[in-house]
Amino acid sequence: MIENRIFNFSAGPAVLPEDVLLQVRDNLLNYKNCGLGMMEMSHRGKEFTEIIQDTEATLRKLLSISDDYAVIFTTGGATNQFSMVAMNLLGGATGNYINTGVWSKKAIAEAKKFGEVHVAASSEGDSFSSIPTNIDLSNNAAYLHFTSNNTIFGTQFSAEPQAGSTPLICDASSDFLHKPLDVSKYGLIYAGAQKNLGPSGVTLVVIRKDLLERIPENLPIMMDYRTYVDGESLYNTPPTLPIYVVGEVLKWIDAQGGLVEMEKRNRNKAAVLYQAIDAGDFYRGTAQKGSRSVMNVTFRLASENLESLFLEKAKAAGFSGLKGHRSVGGIRASVYNAFPSQGVDALVEFMKEFESSNG
Amino acid sequence: MIENRIFNFSAGPAVLPEDVLLQVRDNLLNYKNCGLGMMEMSHRGKEFTEIIQDTEATLRKLLSISDDYAVIFTTGGATNQFSMVAMNLLGGATGNYINTGVWSKKAIAEAKKFGEVHVAASSEGDSFSSIPTNIDLSNNAAYLHFTSNNTIFGTQFSAEPQAGSTPLICDASSDFLHKPLDVSKYGLIYAGAQKNLGPSGVTLVVIRKDLLERIPENLPIMMDYRTYVDGESLYNTPPTLPIYVVGEVLKWIDAQGGLVEMEKRNRNKAAVLYQAIDAGDFYRGTAQKGSRSVMNVTFRLASENLESLFLEKAKAAGFSGLKGHRSVGGIRASVYNAFPSQGVDALVEFMKEFESSNG
Repeated sequence: MIENRIFNFSAGPAVLPEDVLLQVRDNLLNYKNCGLGMMEMSHRGKEFTEIIQDTEATLRKLLSISDDYAVIFTTGGATNQFSMVAMNLLGGATGNYINTGVWSKKAIAEAKKFGEVHVAASSEGDSFSSIPTNIDLSNNAAYLHFTSNNTIFGTQFSAEPQAGSTPLICDASSDFLHKPLDVSKYGLIYAGAQKNLGPSGVTLVVIRKDLLERIPENLPIMMDYRTYVDGESLYNTPPTLPIYVVGEVLKWIDAQGGLVEMEKRNRNKAAVLYQAIDAGDFYRGTAQKGSRSVMNVTFRLASENLESLFLEKAKAAGFSGLKGHRSVGGIRASVYNAFPSQGVDALVEFMKEFESSNG
Repeated sequence: MIENRIFNFSAGPAVLPEDVLLQVRDNLLNYKNCGLGMMEMSHRGKEFTEIIQDTEATLRKLLSISDDYAVIFTTGGATNQFSMVAMNLLGGATGNYINTGVWSKKAIAEAKKFGEVHVAASSEGDSFSSIPTNIDLSNNAAYLHFTSNNTIFGTQFSAEPQAGSTPLICDASSDFLHKPLDVSKYGLIYAGAQKNLGPSGVTLVVIRKDLLERIPENLPIMMDYRTYVDGESLYNTPPTLPIYVVGEVLKWIDAQGGLVEMEKRNRNKAAVLYQAIDAGDFYRGTAQKGSRSVMNVTFRLASENLESLFLEKAKAAGFSGLKGHRSVGGIRASVYNAFPSQGVDALVEFMKEFESSNG
C-alpha cells in the first residue's frame, strides 16, 4: 500500500494501479538487477526488446488479436492520430465521421486538411448529450471514424456503430480495454495511453494489415504507419518508460482477471455513481441515460456557485480531479480501470453529506 | 549511491545522474506529497504546470535564451524533426544540408519529400571520419542544417558552420548542453532527450520566433511548430514523466556548475579516452583527430574477432553498451554529461589490461 494516497478522479493522465507504481519504482534505479535503470537502457538491448515484445503479446492476449492486425506504439497522442488516419487511409475516398463532441470535431478538422469528409451522424443537435444511432454513410467511404467514449460530455457508445463493409476506425483513447472488444470488427483502433493504459507519452494503434496498402508514398516518415509496422515500433528510439509502464498495466489487467473482470468492476463503479446522481434532484447527470459513459461520469448541481463549493469541499476531503472540462464546467468523476471502488463509495458518501448540508 | 550500478556507455537512452534517478523514484508514488504519483497528475494541474514552466526556465537560464526564441517540447524524436523542419521552414526555398553521416542523410531524405535540397558540404568522401569545413550554400537557401555530433562515426563540430544570413538549424540530439552554446547564432535547435537531457519520449526544440511566420497552413496539427508555441506545449497531453525527468536533469546540470562545468568534465573524460587510444597501435580511433567527438568515442581493434573478445570481456567486467552502432561495428564509448569520470578511468584501466593479455 502506498501511503497518503488520495482518490484521483483525473480525466488523464489518470490514476495507475498501485501494484504497477511499486513495480516501476523498484525497477527505476536498477531494472531487474541488470545494473542499469529502466530509463537508461538502450532500446535495442535485450531488456527493452523483451519489454516491448511482452507488452504487445499481453495486449494480443487480452483482446485475442489475430495476426491480421499489427500492434504499434506511436507518439503525439490521439491528436496526432487524427492526422495520421486521414493521411494514411483516405486514399482519395471520403472520410466518414460520427461527431459526438470536442474530440470528434478535432478529428474531422484534421481530416478536412487531407481530403473529403462526410459527417455520417452527429449529436451536436442535443449538445452532445447522446450517442447518435442513425448512421448515414456516404458513397465511396474510405472508413467510418468514431470516438468510443467522450470524456468531456460523459457519453459512450455501448456497441460499435454499423459501418457495413467500410473499415471502422475508433479513437478509443478514453475507454480502451475497459471491457472485452471484438477487434475483428475494426480496421484501426488507437488510444493515447494516459487513461486506461499507462502514463502519457505513448499511443497504441491496432491496425488491420491490409489497410497498409492504402498508404500513399512520401508521407513524413513518423506519420506513416508502415514505419512503425515494418520497424516493430523501433525505427527510431521509442518512449521506453511509457511503453514499459503500459506493459505493466496490461499485465496487471491480465492478473486481475482480464477484460471481463475490468468490465464488471467498471459497470459497478459507474452504477453506484449514477444511482447517487439519480437518487434525487440535487445532482443532475448531463448525458442522456442510454448514452452514459462508464468511464467519465458527468453531472451538474443547481448553480455554478454550488458546483464551486462542491469542488472546494471535495478537494478538502481528499478527492482530486473532479472539476469538469474547462469547456463545459460542472463535475466529472473519471473512473478508469485502475480507479478503486472504495473511491467511488467514498465520493457517494461525500455527495450525500454535501447534499444534506447544502440541499 | 545506487547499489550494484554498472558503467553504462550506452549511446542512448543513456545513463542519467544518480541524484536525478533518486529524485524521480521518490516522487513516483506521491509527487511532493500531493497524494498523486508523478505519472498520474493532470497535465493542466498546478503541479505539472509548475514542472513544465520550471523546465523551460532552467533551460533558458543554462543557455541564456532570449525572448526572441520559443522553447517547446515535442515527440517523435529527432526523426520527426527531420520532417517538421522541412515542412515548416522550407517555404519554397532550398534546404541546405551538411552531410556528416547516417542522421544527416535521414534529415536530407525527409527534406526531399517536401522541397528542394542542396548538400552544402559532405564528408561522405572520407567515410564520414571528419567534419567538412567548406560550406557551399545554394542560392535562395531556406536554412543550413547540420548534425552537431555524429553518434555513429564519433565526429563532432567544434564550432558552428558558417551560414551567413541563412538561419542555422541544428540537430543537437547527441551533444546538446555538453558545453555552453550561443543560441543567438541559431534559427532552430532540436534534441531528442535520451542522450544528454533525460529519458526517451520527448524532444526539445528551441526556435527563433520570426521563423514561425514561414509556416504554411494546413500542416498536420502536431507537425506545426505553432501548435506547440501557441499552446505552450500543452495543446494536447504532453509526455509528462519524460518532461519532468528532463527538468530534473537540467536542474542537476545547473547545480553542478552549469554548462561551463559540463564542458570541463566532458573534455577531461574524452581526453583520457583518446589518450589511451593514441598511446599505441593496439587501438585505433576512427574519427580524424580534428573532428573527434567528446560525446561518442569510437575506435577499432586489429580484427573483428579481437573486437568481439574485447566486448565480451568488457561486459563481464561490468561495462555496458560499448558495442559500436550495428552499421559500422567497432567499439563506441558514449560519455554524455551524466557519465562519471570514474567509469572512464575504469575503462582505460581495462583497455590496458586487455592489451597486455591480447597485444
